[in-house]
Amino acid sequence: MMDDDVESGNRLRSFPNMRSKPYNPLIFRFFMGINVRVLLIILLLGFGAIFYIGARTSPVIIFVFTICIISFILSIYLTKWVLSKDEGPLEMAQISDAIRDGAEGFFRTQYGTISKMAFLLALVILSIYLFRSTTPQQEASGLGRSTSAFITVAAFLLGALCSGIAGYVGMWVSVRANVRVSSAARRSAREALQIAVRAGGFSALVVVGMAVIGIAILYAIFYVLLGVDTPGSMKVTDLPLLLVGYGFGASFVALFAQLGGGIYTKAADVGADLVGKVEQGIPEDDPRNPAVIADLVGDNVGDCAARGADLFESIAAEIISAMILGGTMAQRCKIEDPSGFILFPLVVHSFDLVISSVGILSIRGTRDSSVKVPIEDPMTILQKGYSVTIVLAVITFAASTRWLLYTEQAPSAWLNFALCGLVGIITAYVFVWITKYYTDYKHEPVRTLALSSSTGHGTNIIAGVSLGLESTALPVIVISVSIVSAFWLGHNSGLVDEAGNPTGGLFGTAVATMGMLSTAAYVLTMDMFGPIADNAGGIVEMSQQPESVREITDVLDAVGNTTKATTKGFAIGSAALASFLLFSAYMDEVSAFANEPFKQVDIAIPEVFVGGLLGSMLIYLFSAWACSAVGRTAQEVVKEVRRQFIERPGIMEYKEKPDYGRCVAIVASAALREMIKPGALAIVSPIVVGFLFRILGYYTGQPLLGAKVVAAMLMFATVSGILMALFLNTAGGAWDNAKKYIETGALGGKGSDSHKAAVTGDTVGDPFKDTAGPSLHVLIKMLATITLVMAPVFL
Amino acid sequence: MMDDDVESGNRLRSFPNMRSKPYNPLIFRFFMGINVRVLLIILLLGFGAIFYIGARTSPVIIFVFTICIISFILSIYLTKWVLSKDEGPLEMAQISDAIRDGAEGFFRTQYGTISKMAFLLALVILSIYLFRSTTPQQEASGLGRSTSAFITVAAFLLGALCSGIAGYVGMWVSVRANVRVSSAARRSAREALQIAVRAGGFSALVVVGMAVIGIAILYAIFYVLLGVDTPGSMKVTDLPLLLVGYGFGASFVALFAQLGGGIYTKAADVGADLVGKVEQGIPEDDPRNPAVIADLVGDNVGDCAARGADLFESIAAEIISAMILGGTMAQRCKIEDPSGFILFPLVVHSFDLVISSVGILSIRGTRDSSVKVPIEDPMTILQKGYSVTIVLAVITFAASTRWLLYTEQAPSAWLNFALCGLVGIITAYVFVWITKYYTDYKHEPVRTLALSSSTGHGTNIIAGVSLGLESTALPVIVISVSIVSAFWLGHNSGLVDEAGNPTGGLFGTAVATMGMLSTAAYVLTMDMFGPIADNAGGIVEMSQQPESVREITDVLDAVGNTTKATTKGFAIGSAALASFLLFSAYMDEVSAFANEPFKQVDIAIPEVFVGGLLGSMLIYLFSAWACSAVGRTAQEVVKEVRRQFIERPGIMEYKEKPDYGRCVAIVASAALREMIKPGALAIVSPIVVGFLFRILGYYTGQPLLGAKVVAAMLMFATVSGILMALFLNTAGGAWDNAKKYIETGALGGKGSDSHKAAVTGDTVGDPFKDTAGPSLHVLIKMLATITLVMAPVFL
Repeated sequence: MMDDDVESGNRLRSFPNMRSKPYNPLIFRFFMGINVRVLLIILLLGFGAIFYIGARTSPVIIFVFTICIISFILSIYLTKWVLSKDEGPLEMAQISDAIRDGAEGFFRTQYGTISKMAFLLALVILSIYLFRSTTPQQEASGLGRSTSAFITVAAFLLGALCSGIAGYVGMWVSVRANVRVSSAARRSAREALQIAVRAGGFSALVVVGMAVIGIAILYAIFYVLLGVDTPGSMKVTDLPLLLVGYGFGASFVALFAQLGGGIYTKAADVGADLVGKVEQGIPEDDPRNPAVIADLVGDNVGDCAARGADLFESIAAEIISAMILGGTMAQRCKIEDPSGFILFPLVVHSFDLVISSVGILSIRGTRDSSVKVPIEDPMTILQKGYSVTIVLAVITFAASTRWLLYTEQAPSAWLNFALCGLVGIITAYVFVWITKYYTDYKHEPVRTLALSSSTGHGTNIIAGVSLGLESTALPVIVISVSIVSAFWLGHNSGLVDEAGNPTGGLFGTAVATMGMLSTAAYVLTMDMFGPIADNAGGIVEMSQQPESVREITDVLDAVGNTTKATTKGFAIGSAALASFLLFSAYMDEVSAFANEPFKQVDIAIPEVFVGGLLGSMLIYLFSAWACSAVGRTAQEVVKEVRRQFIERPGIMEYKEKPDYGRCVAIVASAALREMIKPGALAIVSPIVVGFLFRILGYYTGQPLLGAKVVAAMLMFATVSGILMALFLNTAGGAWDNAKKYIETGALGGKGSDSHKAAVTGDTVGDPFKDTAGPSLHVLIKMLATITLVMAPVFL
Repeated sequence: MMDDDVESGNRLRSFPNMRSKPYNPLIFRFFMGINVRVLLIILLLGFGAIFYIGARTSPVIIFVFTICIISFILSIYLTKWVLSKDEGPLEMAQISDAIRDGAEGFFRTQYGTISKMAFLLALVILSIYLFRSTTPQQEASGLGRSTSAFITVAAFLLGALCSGIAGYVGMWVSVRANVRVSSAARRSAREALQIAVRAGGFSALVVVGMAVIGIAILYAIFYVLLGVDTPGSMKVTDLPLLLVGYGFGASFVALFAQLGGGIYTKAADVGADLVGKVEQGIPEDDPRNPAVIADLVGDNVGDCAARGADLFESIAAEIISAMILGGTMAQRCKIEDPSGFILFPLVVHSFDLVISSVGILSIRGTRDSSVKVPIEDPMTILQKGYSVTIVLAVITFAASTRWLLYTEQAPSAWLNFALCGLVGIITAYVFVWITKYYTDYKHEPVRTLALSSSTGHGTNIIAGVSLGLESTALPVIVISVSIVSAFWLGHNSGLVDEAGNPTGGLFGTAVATMGMLSTAAYVLTMDMFGPIADNAGGIVEMSQQPESVREITDVLDAVGNTTKATTKGFAIGSAALASFLLFSAYMDEVSAFANEPFKQVDIAIPEVFVGGLLGSMLIYLFSAWACSAVGRTAQEVVKEVRRQFIERPGIMEYKEKPDYGRCVAIVASAALREMIKPGALAIVSPIVVGFLFRILGYYTGQPLLGAKVVAAMLMFATVSGILMALFLNTAGGAWDNAKKYIETGALGGKGSDSHKAAVTGDTVGDPFKDTAGPSLHVLIKMLATITLVMAPVFL
């Protein structure tokens, strides 16, 4: 066995497709080429510069910088701590090396492709902005056409770069932590848990911290460079609109990262399961399965890298839209110092870093790690950490509102906004609970689903689809209640515009969204924990460790599945709330560009209704292409695995080693090819629709028609996207756990006909929950940011 | 064998659940009690009365009456012709009797439940209308509160009654024609085809004729009774609003008919297939399968009765909404004689009866039916008839527009509207083509789907779901183009209101919808042909006829599958177009009730957006419940069939007869139980949402909030419903045909692993395409009519 693994490791290290194009992003090569001391000096100088700029902007910015830098230092400590753990016996390290090589190889090729597309798009944006007409406001503030073009493009590229780094960091730590978790599982469950949590925590802190500091730096630089708030130049309330490029860059990269990663991981998984589990009857992650390394690589590039980019983008988009809304509202209410309303989101997420760190550090290993203690339910431990984080979130959120949102015009407004935040936090909690109810086999729905497997593949699929469709109801009701109640809390906050109309409603919804995301770093930690534990389990299985070690990683893996499912609920809930902010930001933006009011999206106008129809259709088509990409690639994997089993009959008796590299190469090249079509659809279609209806509007005498149609497209796509993503995620999660429930011995257990039907369901659920569903989260927010950036095309 | 069938027939005739409650609708018992001559005299007197009333209303009404009565006479001729054919040998007649008993038994129980619910709802409507405030318009026209209440309730009950009759007629002829088609198949394919087409034609003519004459009679009676257009009373342009109750009654019955019938037919089908085909490997409709009679009964109650009610409701809703829009527009443009615009839809559908009859009669048997001629492709024959009908439709449509829509104010308006009609006819044609492309195994998509079956159940399902999701794209683009182009053709028709604004846009969309439905009777004929041929095939299989006879019915059955699928495309396309009319009718209605303008549905208002979110969610939840009802009932059938095979091992050797009656009873009672939940959801939720937001609006000072939220709910539900129905119908049809493609011998043919995977797909597709999908068509239009009728609740 050992020899086999060594050889397969070597083989992997030389698989041709991946390593022949060692594309290293320029920025990495640049930094890697510099001497460490020089780097340190540059870093210090950089910090000095940003603090200097920050000091000229606002003390709040200094606060944000400080917290971000402290959390970066903490994250470096966490890495050092994780890396100081041992890598276990040689066979583990070799498997881990193979996984790492596969993951890094794919990451480089994938991000190489993405960065080329990003540069191309940057050129397009540049030319659009250079040739559009400037708004009167911009002319008044001296912001010329070319300045605005370069600002947008720079923000876009910075967002794309940061998103790429976020994805890389997520993958970097997971390919190193997995083997350390496997190794620790030989000693103690608690230690293994701690390593996985701290590794997840590292990337969560980096991802959230980078989103916050990136926006803060951009804000401060623009503030100083453009001489904001000095007479004759830009007002601070207009500044956040310049940041939208950053959000678009982040979501652009996240979309392709999620698509490519999602297709990679699930094609490998489905292919491996269909031949391995269903046809040959060998267990998951068995070393005899030629697709197993591809599957393990997939966890890293799909779940870790892609989810890092996804959450980075969520937070960035949410911060920017809340800043825009805060600015607009402050301007309307003529608040003397509007910077509090604008910078509020940055502070909330800075506190997020602090409280999540407390939560992460509250999960400790046992004192004496050399003695095996009885396994405590890891879910309880993680939940305890979450409870600590949530309690702290409520306190710090209330404090932040009092600090920044207190205004003499409406002395009790901050209290209303604190309540909005509470609405958001409660919404997050309820969402997590609902997701658990529908996907955990402790509850009715998954049990019924498992029961339906006993009457065949067909009834299992029907029941799973019904369960997924039904599971959309409660989240939608919860979201509806929180949108309406947060809006009314904000509306009645006492903030009024010049004419005396209440104006705080939308900002209330924004604050609720921030409340929902106020524990994002901890939630991301729990999410990252999942694939690391999953990988660790795979390494344990492949290196044929004793039963007791497998038991520990199995428990961690099961917990990871639940946390992964709940994070998706959390992500879609925040996307639903955030989208509503982005609509408003879009309408403000269009209004500013077109210099005429744009307050309504009237779907009784046929063209606008058609826009909505097209928007909903976009979601269906996108999901179709994402799923079929997985299906097609999985078929290739199935054929390859079948071929290997036929051509090398010794594989099943451990006498011959499978060719892992071929499967990795097949999946990698297919994922790169297949991610383009749905991604391009998402980016091109709103631009094309907006442009066509702009022309139609021009010839039929309807001003702003393009912008209105795009608004309807955006809103309908958001609604359909939320529902479709909920359906796909929940159905997938439920199928997965129905299978797990049967594997515990229920309804005939492993190998029974019920189990076979349940595996079919699980296979169908894989692309639903890990490719199409998460890609839709990103798509929803990408649509919102692309319409913001591309608004000049529709006008 | 023969003895078995006789006994099973007897057994069926006495299965307890069904016959112990021989609920016969009062109206049937009443008419059946009267002497034939008396009935004839009453009928003649009735005709005299309606012609008298018609003559006092408009010559157009006389024209409509005449055509409807001629087509009723033609339909009686068609029935006589079909019934004059022989019922074949004794065993065929016995099987047919068993099917008829099962179908009629279920129909009575089902419509008994539905009529009770309808009476209950009538009381609710009555009390709502009695306690609401009257509109100033009504007061001016002397239309008191109680008059308006009784008018609405009477229209509702008449609509419900007519819809019930439409369903009954569809089923009545199909249970009689099926055996005659089987018998004719022993002689000649052409004769069998002709019988099936004429039987379908009979019910199509009755359904369409009844929708038209029902509305015409109501219109004429209201016109005369309320003294319309005499000074001081109601204007003719307000009259169509009184008819909405009729549409709601029709859609109310259709919804439950489709749900109950759909659950019945597919639960039996899925259950029979899962044990029979997959587990035991016996062919479809094999007499050894205990669920086979239930399956054959299902074709009649699900496909025939339900589709009759569905199309009846489509045409009724579409006529009424077009009449409302025509009236509104005529009033706005101050057209001297607005009755042409109001009565136009009735004329279009009268012509539909004429041209479809020509199409139906153009399909002839061979001259010498005793000689077997080489089988001509039945699809070609049906297509030829369709081409004849379409060409005539274009001509008569243009003639109708010139006749009724010519006005001196805008002399070329009729030409624009004729072009709108052409847009509708083309849309219908393209829709049928797209559906065929995605569901026929002659084309790429189904072939790819079949190929994906070769790698297992999982990849088959993933590919089918992707195919279904993808298939929404082209129809949505086509619908978008036709909405926008018909709107602009109408807009530029030259019709302007007092202020000089063009106003014909919406009416243009209405005309396009009528164009789409202008061949409805022929399309319904082709649709009804499907289940009759399917049943005939079942009877041939069960009575063990020679191979040559089976071949003929198999060909007819395959054609029936294609026509069924294309009708669904047609139905959803017309629902999509019609829904847009119903929105406008709703907004006009609200505006009239509330006496303030209601021109916009602004989804940038949080509550309105939430309404949209809830509307989309309603579609998902409804589909979930419809599918899970089938899944649950199918599981009961599977258990029963498995039990019979175990307890009576002689069944498989034809030594023991299966207990067909138990399966019929299980499916019937389950279908009745399960149709309530989704049906109630559809009816209750818009009322509850509207009422809640009305109260919220009252306390937050937003007038018309309830009405606006309901409008958004309606629009989002329509968009989501169209997409979901397209997805469900196409995926289901494609799975079905992928299985059929493999059964032709491709990819291993019958019994191979690919075939098993394809059967799983077919099973999943069954509730998609025959329960949830068609129920969604009805739901979309039911939502539109319920909001029209219940508008007073939201204000």
